[in-house]
Amino acid sequence: MNKRRGLLVVFSGPSGSGKGTVLKEAMKMSDNLTVSVSVTTRAPRVGETDGVDYIFYSKEQFESLIQKDGFLEWACFCDNYYGTPKERIEALLSEGKDVILEIEVQGAMKIKETCPEAVLIFNMPPSSEELKKRLTGRKTDADDVIKKRLDTAVWEISQAEKYDYIIVNDRIERAAKSFLSVIEGEKCRPLRNRAVLEEYK
Amino acid sequence: MNKRRGLLVVFSGPSGSGKGTVLKEAMKMSDNLTVSVSVTTRAPRVGETDGVDYIFYSKEQFESLIQKDGFLEWACFCDNYYGTPKERIEALLSEGKDVILEIEVQGAMKIKETCPEAVLIFNMPPSSEELKKRLTGRKTDADDVIKKRLDTAVWEISQAEKYDYIIVNDRIERAAKSFLSVIEGEKCRPLRNRAVLEEYK
Repeated sequence: MNKRRGLLVVFSGPSGSGKGTVLKEAMKMSDNLTVSVSVTTRAPRVGETDGVDYIFYSKEQFESLIQKDGFLEWACFCDNYYGTPKERIEALLSEGKDVILEIEVQGAMKIKETCPEAVLIFNMPPSSEELKKRLTGRKTDADDVIKKRLDTAVWEISQAEKYDYIIVNDRIERAAKSFLSVIEGEKCRPLRNRAVLEEYK
Repeated sequence: MNKRRGLLVVFSGPSGSGKGTVLKEAMKMSDNLTVSVSVTTRAPRVGETDGVDYIFYSKEQFESLIQKDGFLEWACFCDNYYGTPKERIEALLSEGKDVILEIEVQGAMKIKETCPEAVLIFNMPPSSEELKKRLTGRKTDADDVIKKRLDTAVWEISQAEKYDYIIVNDRIERAAKSFLSVIEGEKCRPLRNRAVLEEYK
């Protein structure tokens, strides 16, 4: 039997919902998760490592890969490209790894279109009050910056119903467990168990 | 906030797939599961306790409850009625309990029609070979009895794709964990988290 194909998981959630922390905790609990590294044309920031934080491409390299249909999804923010490279993800899925794409809502919707087998999970903050507290926390920020950040978060949450699953990050350990349960549960879908059913035909 | 509603779970699988064992193991791991007790009009067998193995009704009692629309599903096998009582299950779900109905394929399909929110899980034996071994194991049985038992199992398995999830019972502990992951994952569905999303509207 071939190695069982891994699951492609899209993980989104507003800034302040604690996606990174949930993911880190989940990766402590399971050794089958891999977070996909995005490709970008923006300049590396201090402390960022090529291939770890991002894969850094020149604009020409990026556009050439677009031409070759080499991205699962890509977008342009503030004159910089960001994208999810197809080939590497396919290789990981074939190895049986569960691949996590930590991307924002528009990217997630593109993945849902191009990869219907992908599982979309949305990370919710513990409460609207707590979200507000976290996003207004840095007092150095101007009021309009804070307002924009809050508006974006509320818009993103309004899109959560388009996701397959919602995780409420009220306790990190519990949220991480829910994350892993969603993945384990999805692996029990009949369409992912064709080989098992075929045996009896 | 009201107590969160429990999940209605239908659990089916052919004789020899080890449903009972998986369920017993899952109940050791979670204290939120309750197995629903069916109502029947057949006579109690030696060692069976009313209210534990079955709720034993007279034919008149059973037919009266049918008239009152008191069953989620019911059927008649070999001149005996068997049914899933509605009221008690509703009470358990309201308390937040996850209620397991261990019923056969036709009953499961009826539940899917009447309770679309129910989650249907099918328990598969480890392999067709192992199933054959288990079902032919009792050498005292006549060949035609064995053949009928096998045919029934193969037919039931052919219906597994109609279920929401399939669990392969190759190792009991793993199967029980998958069973619980399916339940936990389903609780993360957006439609079961309306209240959380409403908070941001």
